[in-house]
Amino acid sequence: MHNRPPTIGEYLLRKLRHYDIEHIFGIPGDYVLRFYHLIEQDPIQHIGMTREDAAGYAADAYARLKGMGAACITYCVGGLSMVNAIAGAYAEKSPVVVISGAPGIKERAKDALLHHKVRDFHTQQRIYEQITVATALLDEPFSAFNEIDRVLDAVYRYKRPGYIELPRDMVDIHGSLHQRPSTGGHLSEPAVLDAAVDDALDFVNHSKHPVILAGVELHRFGYQNKLLKLVEEKRIPVVATLLGKSVMPEGHPLYLGVYEGAMGREDVRQFVEDSDCVIILGAFMTDVNLGIYTANLERGKSIYATSEKIAVRYRSYEEVMLDDFIDGLASPSLRKRKKPNVEWAKQPSEPFEVSPDAPLSVKRLFQHLNEFMIEGLTVIADAGDSLFGALDLRMRQRNDFISPAYYTSMGFAVPASVGAQLGRPDTRPVVIVGDGAFQMTGMELSTTARYGLNPIILVLNNHGYGTERHLHEGTFNDIRDWNYSRLPEVFGAGRGYHVRTEGEFDEAFKAALAEDEHFVLIEVELEKLDRSPALARLAERMSAKI
Amino acid sequence: MHNRPPTIGEYLLRKLRHYDIEHIFGIPGDYVLRFYHLIEQDPIQHIGMTREDAAGYAADAYARLKGMGAACITYCVGGLSMVNAIAGAYAEKSPVVVISGAPGIKERAKDALLHHKVRDFHTQQRIYEQITVATALLDEPFSAFNEIDRVLDAVYRYKRPGYIELPRDMVDIHGSLHQRPSTGGHLSEPAVLDAAVDDALDFVNHSKHPVILAGVELHRFGYQNKLLKLVEEKRIPVVATLLGKSVMPEGHPLYLGVYEGAMGREDVRQFVEDSDCVIILGAFMTDVNLGIYTANLERGKSIYATSEKIAVRYRSYEEVMLDDFIDGLASPSLRKRKKPNVEWAKQPSEPFEVSPDAPLSVKRLFQHLNEFMIEGLTVIADAGDSLFGALDLRMRQRNDFISPAYYTSMGFAVPASVGAQLGRPDTRPVVIVGDGAFQMTGMELSTTARYGLNPIILVLNNHGYGTERHLHEGTFNDIRDWNYSRLPEVFGAGRGYHVRTEGEFDEAFKAALAEDEHFVLIEVELEKLDRSPALARLAERMSAKI
Repeated sequence: MHNRPPTIGEYLLRKLRHYDIEHIFGIPGDYVLRFYHLIEQDPIQHIGMTREDAAGYAADAYARLKGMGAACITYCVGGLSMVNAIAGAYAEKSPVVVISGAPGIKERAKDALLHHKVRDFHTQQRIYEQITVATALLDEPFSAFNEIDRVLDAVYRYKRPGYIELPRDMVDIHGSLHQRPSTGGHLSEPAVLDAAVDDALDFVNHSKHPVILAGVELHRFGYQNKLLKLVEEKRIPVVATLLGKSVMPEGHPLYLGVYEGAMGREDVRQFVEDSDCVIILGAFMTDVNLGIYTANLERGKSIYATSEKIAVRYRSYEEVMLDDFIDGLASPSLRKRKKPNVEWAKQPSEPFEVSPDAPLSVKRLFQHLNEFMIEGLTVIADAGDSLFGALDLRMRQRNDFISPAYYTSMGFAVPASVGAQLGRPDTRPVVIVGDGAFQMTGMELSTTARYGLNPIILVLNNHGYGTERHLHEGTFNDIRDWNYSRLPEVFGAGRGYHVRTEGEFDEAFKAALAEDEHFVLIEVELEKLDRSPALARLAERMSAKI
Repeated sequence: MHNRPPTIGEYLLRKLRHYDIEHIFGIPGDYVLRFYHLIEQDPIQHIGMTREDAAGYAADAYARLKGMGAACITYCVGGLSMVNAIAGAYAEKSPVVVISGAPGIKERAKDALLHHKVRDFHTQQRIYEQITVATALLDEPFSAFNEIDRVLDAVYRYKRPGYIELPRDMVDIHGSLHQRPSTGGHLSEPAVLDAAVDDALDFVNHSKHPVILAGVELHRFGYQNKLLKLVEEKRIPVVATLLGKSVMPEGHPLYLGVYEGAMGREDVRQFVEDSDCVIILGAFMTDVNLGIYTANLERGKSIYATSEKIAVRYRSYEEVMLDDFIDGLASPSLRKRKKPNVEWAKQPSEPFEVSPDAPLSVKRLFQHLNEFMIEGLTVIADAGDSLFGALDLRMRQRNDFISPAYYTSMGFAVPASVGAQLGRPDTRPVVIVGDGAFQMTGMELSTTARYGLNPIILVLNNHGYGTERHLHEGTFNDIRDWNYSRLPEVFGAGRGYHVRTEGEFDEAFKAALAEDEHFVLIEVELEKLDRSPALARLAERMSAKI
């Protein structure tokens, strides 16, 4: 019997472990209880969240930091509650595996009106086809292992979510090990690769001021070291996109900052747009990512290389892999530059001094926070001014920065901090979240408390949907004020502060750094119409379109 | 200019008012701000929720009580957060109109990576096609009014959700009033209707003990008076399904109780299953609805009539409308019965006396609650034992009962209470919700407080996913305990109680009835493994399938 192939449930867990998954986020339900029973006996730990969408956000953040994440939920009432979180992971390329329990195949035979069913038994799978790169229904044992392999391969290769539906009567069925050979990784077509690299080298070598615009894919695919090698060997300065922030160590002498068109720092914008050769690596050309199209990048002056497209100025190249292209660029044929003069980017814009009695302002809050960016902190910024304000945080040491900077789904940050810290137990998240977003998912601090995690949560309370007020004001932007700092009493864990002045924030944040045995929530009182300089610039651009 | 046709946004609001919609539930976002601006100037009131799924649940409950409901949200991050709530409305036939903002048609032309987009611009609409009866993208002015009419007609006719996507640059465009004539209501085919009614009359007239099994469609389509007329004129006793509970006034002399197979009261089960003619009207034959198929109804002894299918024993009839069929049944040709002997159903099972120091139990809690069921209370039961326990509540007066009894999505009840009370301002909701479900959406009490609503919320705290413990126990059924009764301090409104004994519950509920100026939350402390008699029977049946 010991040579018998594993059951479908066992095989799925084994494969997840191969991808270094140590935690699965989710909520049980009757159609998935049998698989939950297997998880409980497995080295992989189940992390119980309070809501399924929060499980999706946690798995997404985990995937961003660890290479792959997984969420496991029940049929429809669970899976359909996670659609937005997984759509965000799709949009921002995060490799999350969704495992859904489902009615047993035998039960389905009657086409019965089993509970949780919406229209027919395939409703959930059809919905997930819209927001994943691959879906599979494990409805018979002969192909089940191949189907699991196919979905996980696709998730790993394309860094997008995948969906596996596991009917409850298939969990304990033994699968078949007569597997199809893997189709293997994609390879570049050598002649096309040579042409692309030759054209790129020629273009860069003839340019005067090349600059690299580094995007999030370099992080997702683990190419940060390739980037670093290219930058250091050839001495080409680097800027990052919003979504790509933290792909380079921000203290690096050749790193200039975040480029986001008119929304960002003027000196960075000018440097990039004056360049005669912008090497765009792994960046999505999205609106928020690039300052709502205030970015001004000419095709004739650009190389554009992502996992989906490679182009040098006006020429495109099919069947060329991003990593081969980056390796090609880093070849000895690319000439090494003189040390560029980028000292200007390193000047701290203003030295910060606390004015103890001054009311807090968004601008000074982030300058202040900058002073606290010590090693081992990971910043997780929610959508809105939490993100825009955080852009100028200069992480001197090796810090990670996570944000839904393109899909911009409010409520990402608090549940994401659960996944982030479990994926990187050596770091402590600093969550920056507005009051509107906090009201959507902030109660996930319950899970933070349950598993003894210790993030620092800054609730920026500007009394409503602050970003929207600057686009179009109306009573619909108001929300009810909560006493956020009282929440630790509800959870019976953590510590809450409510601060109104720079002096109070200073004390509270220092206390939070010292109190690392539990989470600390700091409610930061702000004026209703206060905003970061970046939001001021953004609002001006966007309100024209509302 | 005063004869100019309305704009698309104006026309949409006007049509919603025609369907008696006075409130729209939702959350603003930049793609929908222009339409929100119109709502603000309209008699329809916008109700700001904390989360989109909660807006969906509120609109669902509102629709159940008022005939139609509406939710308005932004593109993808909003709409995709509401998928589960709308899927539930689809499954349980609730007429909810979803209005989503969207990128402007002109912006889309470039196929740009605008924020909130997932895969392409149609991702959200394709997803909603799976969970609605009709969808429309209002992308040009000539057909926009017809498209709005088509979706709203379908929602009204089929009592299922519909989806309208309104690009932000179309809101203020004037539409065209050259409208298609309406296709009109569906009509029965007279000869088929006659055949169906004749066969039904013949079958019922020859039966000895007919009984009506009344389902939720009678409520959705507003046929309660037709039912009452049939019952009273012909003296046929009635039972309800789980989902149909409260379709008959429960104090009516001919109402026997809820029929749910082996899960429910044995005397009711026996009466129905001994009948030689079960007239099933507007009931879904679903698993939870009918006690996980412990119900035992033979086709040869049944009439089955819903909006989707009409059958008398083994014969089916196409193109017959449910209301025509019910009217036909109530004709003079159906013989009037003698007064049936159903006194047994009216006996209170046990007279209830409070044992002040006794710890609370689920069974006695609901018996106790029964004593408090005064006129003007609407019961909203969440999924799980909140629902199963509530089945035996006998509403002596005219009370409504709302529950996601088929789709059984946890977290329905608290946000639903917002919609329910706004739809029926003369009633006060009593929400019964487990601790697990409360952790999913209970913070919507923020909205309750914001709009000055006054439900009574019973949080049945059995320390985890209690229903699941009885199906398959594991640590995954544990959740973190909250101090639920402290939440009013977070919201700065309402009153909290934490009760452990029958005496404490008695006092707290009486106080809640007296304190009607705000919401009252009562945390009811229960033993981890305590459960209602119905759940005990259900668990036995279901655990065999897990």
